[in-house]
Amino acid sequence: MKPLALHPDRFFDAEPAVRSIARTLYEAVKALPLVCPHGHVPPVLLADDEPFPEPTSLLITPDHYIFRMLYSHGLRLEALGIPTQDGTPVETNPRTIWQRFADHYHLFLGTPTRAWLDYVFYHLFDIRTRLDGATAMPVYDQIRERLQEPAFRPRALFDRFNIEVLTTTDSAADPLAHHQAIRVSDWGGRVVPCFRPDAVFRIAAPGWRQEVERLAEAADLEITRYTDFIEALERRRAFFKEMGATSTDHAVLAPYAERISAGAADRLFQRAFRSEATAEDQAGFEAHMLMEMARMSVEDGLVMQLHPGAYRGHNEAVASRFGPDKGGDIPTATEYTYNLKALLNAYGTDPRLTLVVFTLDESTYSRELAPLAGHYPAMKLGPAWWFFDSIEGMRRYRELTTETAGIYNTAGFNDDTRAFLSIPARHDLARRVDANYVAGLVARHQVDLDDGRRMMRALAYDLAKATYRLDAQPTATLDLAAGADGAVAANRPPG
Amino acid sequence: MKPLALHPDRFFDAEPAVRSIARTLYEAVKALPLVCPHGHVPPVLLADDEPFPEPTSLLITPDHYIFRMLYSHGLRLEALGIPTQDGTPVETNPRTIWQRFADHYHLFLGTPTRAWLDYVFYHLFDIRTRLDGATAMPVYDQIRERLQEPAFRPRALFDRFNIEVLTTTDSAADPLAHHQAIRVSDWGGRVVPCFRPDAVFRIAAPGWRQEVERLAEAADLEITRYTDFIEALERRRAFFKEMGATSTDHAVLAPYAERISAGAADRLFQRAFRSEATAEDQAGFEAHMLMEMARMSVEDGLVMQLHPGAYRGHNEAVASRFGPDKGGDIPTATEYTYNLKALLNAYGTDPRLTLVVFTLDESTYSRELAPLAGHYPAMKLGPAWWFFDSIEGMRRYRELTTETAGIYNTAGFNDDTRAFLSIPARHDLARRVDANYVAGLVARHQVDLDDGRRMMRALAYDLAKATYRLDAQPTATLDLAAGADGAVAANRPPG
Amino acid sequence: MKPLALHPDRFFDAEPAVRSIARTLYEAVKALPLVCPHGHVPPVLLADDEPFPEPTSLLITPDHYIFRMLYSHGLRLEALGIPTQDGTPVETNPRTIWQRFADHYHLFLGTPTRAWLDYVFYHLFDIRTRLDGATAMPVYDQIRERLQEPAFRPRALFDRFNIEVLTTTDSAADPLAHHQAIRVSDWGGRVVPCFRPDAVFRIAAPGWRQEVERLAEAADLEITRYTDFIEALERRRAFFKEMGATSTDHAVLAPYAERISAGAADRLFQRAFRSEATAEDQAGFEAHMLMEMARMSVEDGLVMQLHPGAYRGHNEAVASRFGPDKGGDIPTATEYTYNLKALLNAYGTDPRLTLVVFTLDESTYSRELAPLAGHYPAMKLGPAWWFFDSIEGMRRYRELTTETAGIYNTAGFNDDTRAFLSIPARHDLARRVDANYVAGLVARHQVDLDDGRRMMRALAYDLAKATYRLDAQPTATLDLAAGADGAVAANRPPG
Repeated sequence: MKPLALHPDRFFDAEPAVRSIARTLYEAVKALPLVCPHGHVPPVLLADDEPFPEPTSLLITPDHYIFRMLYSHGLRLEALGIPTQDGTPVETNPRTIWQRFADHYHLFLGTPTRAWLDYVFYHLFDIRTRLDGATAMPVYDQIRERLQEPAFRPRALFDRFNIEVLTTTDSAADPLAHHQAIRVSDWGGRVVPCFRPDAVFRIAAPGWRQEVERLAEAADLEITRYTDFIEALERRRAFFKEMGATSTDHAVLAPYAERISAGAADRLFQRAFRSEATAEDQAGFEAHMLMEMARMSVEDGLVMQLHPGAYRGHNEAVASRFGPDKGGDIPTATEYTYNLKALLNAYGTDPRLTLVVFTLDESTYSRELAPLAGHYPAMKLGPAWWFFDSIEGMRRYRELTTETAGIYNTAGFNDDTRAFLSIPARHDLARRVDANYVAGLVARHQVDLDDGRRMMRALAYDLAKATYRLDAQPTATLDLAAGADGAVAANRPPG
Repeated sequence: MKPLALHPDRFFDAEPAVRSIARTLYEAVKALPLVCPHGHVPPVLLADDEPFPEPTSLLITPDHYIFRMLYSHGLRLEALGIPTQDGTPVETNPRTIWQRFADHYHLFLGTPTRAWLDYVFYHLFDIRTRLDGATAMPVYDQIRERLQEPAFRPRALFDRFNIEVLTTTDSAADPLAHHQAIRVSDWGGRVVPCFRPDAVFRIAAPGWRQEVERLAEAADLEITRYTDFIEALERRRAFFKEMGATSTDHAVLAPYAERISAGAADRLFQRAFRSEATAEDQAGFEAHMLMEMARMSVEDGLVMQLHPGAYRGHNEAVASRFGPDKGGDIPTATEYTYNLKALLNAYGTDPRLTLVVFTLDESTYSRELAPLAGHYPAMKLGPAWWFFDSIEGMRRYRELTTETAGIYNTAGFNDDTRAFLSIPARHDLARRVDANYVAGLVARHQVDLDDGRRMMRALAYDLAKATYRLDAQPTATLDLAAGADGAVAANRPPG
Repeated sequence: MKPLALHPDRFFDAEPAVRSIARTLYEAVKALPLVCPHGHVPPVLLADDEPFPEPTSLLITPDHYIFRMLYSHGLRLEALGIPTQDGTPVETNPRTIWQRFADHYHLFLGTPTRAWLDYVFYHLFDIRTRLDGATAMPVYDQIRERLQEPAFRPRALFDRFNIEVLTTTDSAADPLAHHQAIRVSDWGGRVVPCFRPDAVFRIAAPGWRQEVERLAEAADLEITRYTDFIEALERRRAFFKEMGATSTDHAVLAPYAERISAGAADRLFQRAFRSEATAEDQAGFEAHMLMEMARMSVEDGLVMQLHPGAYRGHNEAVASRFGPDKGGDIPTATEYTYNLKALLNAYGTDPRLTLVVFTLDESTYSRELAPLAGHYPAMKLGPAWWFFDSIEGMRRYRELTTETAGIYNTAGFNDDTRAFLSIPARHDLARRVDANYVAGLVARHQVDLDDGRRMMRALAYDLAKATYRLDAQPTATLDLAAGADGAVAANRPPG
């Protein structure tokens, strides 16, 4: 058994001058509240506030970073208990799965996944022995025991984590029932939705009509024409905003945005209704809808996020048996300069718009994204995302963007996680890596320590809050939004 | 008020061994003369030698690095006094503009712009308090006062900066009157032109015909056919060379070069005269003209520079109101292996050609540019350019190119600046960053200190001078150039 | 004369904590045997075991890293004694060539070529003065003298180098006579072939029919149809495997793999027989054959390697006068996510397949390759290749891949060299750079020293051996392979 310890200087450069400054900068921000403006925590967790069942279903089954790596070494997803969509039976004994994971924990050496997990083990569950095949069951038991304590209920953890605000990600038709339940509860945690309408833009996808039907129902509106569709979206945005939302999110393959005429949009829309829309039709419709989303953001003030570049479902067998988000999504080269031109020309200088752009293609940081964000007032750079939400990934992000865009055109940190328990670990890692980056600037005498502190606070807290307009509880802003009529009011929650 | 100080070890690694070697290497080159083989200083400055009017029009209004960043945070260019082309009034009070700039100076933390400006403030104007909203006016006054001293006239500064040679950038039809004025003056500063004929190659651009007319007039030649056009270019190159030029420069979107027949070229040329040339025609013509420029360089010995990859005027509203070079130019992914193949096959092994290639796409440093420069004798890598003319940018450039191409296939440093006052700051920063890079090699025992010194001198001085053939004052070389006839002689300056 | 010394801490960070850990990690692996699973050493060297003739033909003439750089500074390949294919005479005096090389040895400062050569000079030939123009002849004489000693014969060096296994690269029709000679000799060195059938897949290339004829002869089979071709390949693979091969290798421009029907494949094949195949036909055929190679690897267990991205023969004049591999091959942007999709969907989860993928486009490390290798069980990342087999190149490789794929989805080190004498130098450099990388993780407290040691051993030895299935001498595995019939047995070596 080897001891588990988290070194107080972890992730800092070994060089004593840099390390000492990094410590100083980190100390000043480590206790700041966590602003979580983008993520995938299921709101039901905080609505129901039920105890977490046991370690495997909490830490392994939902985390595609973990089972992706295990899969890459030949462990079948069935053997890891990942639920199937086609009825194929999977391993049901959580201890068996946990043991398999522990047997392969060395695969994660040098990855952020291991850094996050060790933090969770150490700080949340007071584990003091390293996880491996031999310690798997004692670790499992210790976590399992703790999960039964009231202090480990979701809301208690939310408070203990010092989360100031947590944004979830929700489909356009979502009734936001869990958000409503949280609002009317006696618990004061701030949990807000984010409007993600991707599914209703994918007019060539098999389930599109059902998605539009769900949208129509949610918006209390019959949708037969493109103009109905637009009105429904506006109503839903207004409702989301009423429910505290400050942002929308859009996942696309290419960040291509181009307006077409309302007539042309309606023709595509009708073709989709007849199930005749092609992939090309969809690309054109999505490009147009990004323009519409920008227009609506200008009008209702919701911050617009763009997450392009992932080829979803690359491993078709995994996608069809296990569904989306199972580790088989692979980045592709992504182009921003041409693709975003029309959108930025139309809305990029409008002070009412904030557009946060992410990438899975690091070659665009310095070539396209920093120059664009360093020019257009509306555009901000989202933090290092997904495969790059890591020690080296965040270092490269800062080194490749700061000299052109400065830090004040970046959007602070997003944890972007489904793994509720890992939120403090992720913020802590990001704050450490940013502290080390700024410490490097100070140690090389590019900025002085006072300016370093100012930058550090921005990176750890201020930028996320300001970029996502989370400074204040949203108030009566419905009047700004088109379509904010009785239909929306009908959806309005009681509290 | 916080003091402004420039640390003697700035930009060096904090690690004591590296820092100590970097100091040693830097000390040996810091006083070497500045060789400036590519830049955008207006020659009128040194021809007229008038005092600079006041700080804002000297430091803010002409620097698109500065107002780009301010624009990205919502300051309108009108509010910064950037002159408009459409008559829109702009802020005229330089103090108001300076105050706005100072209020936002924190945006530049961690950027090279701030490093350059602080150097100018400290070394040129003896400012000892940091610029911010509170110190804006005292700083302004101190600079303004100094600018009235004779020591702050352009020629005095040129001498004080220890500039050995300064190359400007001039259009194909430029009469080089300012260069002539400098030549006949009693001042001994070496200021030479660079031949940049981009405008006459853009056959689909609205102002093309006027550009060709200006060219014809300058070359004293009627241009009705493609062959006239070629002869005019040859005459102008000969004249530029006579005026001291050692180089040409070519800005293109893609570095595509491909010869077409003279007949085909003439058909494109005639189409352009009828204002019927398409974007595709222009691309073909530009590709052909790059081949012609290489051919002429082989014949007249002018070093050929290629600056590809910038999508110009991305923000159309800014471009149309304020004109070119206003911060709205955005890089694009750039391809060199296929695009340069024909040119390098035709001329890349000819000892008479030097081709200096730049990039705004850092992913090409190690993938395409270093392998090409590490093979073809004619090709050299231009220094880290524009968005990459920075501490991290220059570090990456060396790390990504040296192992394949060595340092001796690189072209030394270019300041590439419009900002005359920032020239020493830029060279100093480059010398420091290169010193730190070489110090790393020495500290890791990849090269010894003697070799490190040899490399350092090459990076700081020798390579720029040798690559751009600035070793000697050009003498009677006109006989090498085609078309060097009486028409050129008629343009020849008296002295 | 300056002394030549190799610092014991070379290539390690100067920072004392990192350096000290790097030393510890390196010490533990520096004496491990060398596993060489991919390279280009001619097997005749070890079959004949003749003394090396003299320094120039040993160290300069065969090394395209060296003469490429010399060529880039204007030395003609003729002047370096590179043999021509068109009968053009070349320099024949090896001392003249050696002197030219030594005169330009400073060009290699900061390159891995110089690091490898200095290692060879110092450790193999006990040279203690640095090579330059003045020391050229004494160095030449000292090497020449040593080469006459029995200890400098190839087999003696192989043993002294502590090479556990050396894989060569051999065309599909190669009789492997040298491998057979090594097998039946009394020398125990393990030298195994690798099956590289590129030439028979290039159906539009001029020499294709002769290549297929050679294949037919080697497989003892008449090839008139596509199915014959497949059977011949299967027989040859079986024979290679019988001769100890554990891998195949495939060089392509784009790593595009897509199956077509056997009928369609036969139509392309027949077109090729009529010399009518186009470049497009070839691309389709190659893409199909990659699928077939994967299928055969699933069946026969040979590890499949993919080396895409080099545009071969970019300098046509050099290629036509001197032939392939003369320094004129230039990388291109390479795409993996779409190109490998069909292959990975068909075979990427099959536990019988190992697919090792390389790149010359570093932008794909983090964007495509690490995510793919971090998901598909069959796929492993080949080490930093060619232009990137260097100190900074290997550092970037680890920093860009580990956080997503871990180290256990990478294939360990390949020396990939023609230069037999440089093998220890290359492994030593790789072990040092990996030790320094892992030391950084330890010093930043991302992994502890015990885990660091475990990782280090994997990087230096275990991963290469396991990935390439070199753990055991291959035994009776022919039964796994299709087409392993008498024809193969007829080719079977006696021993």
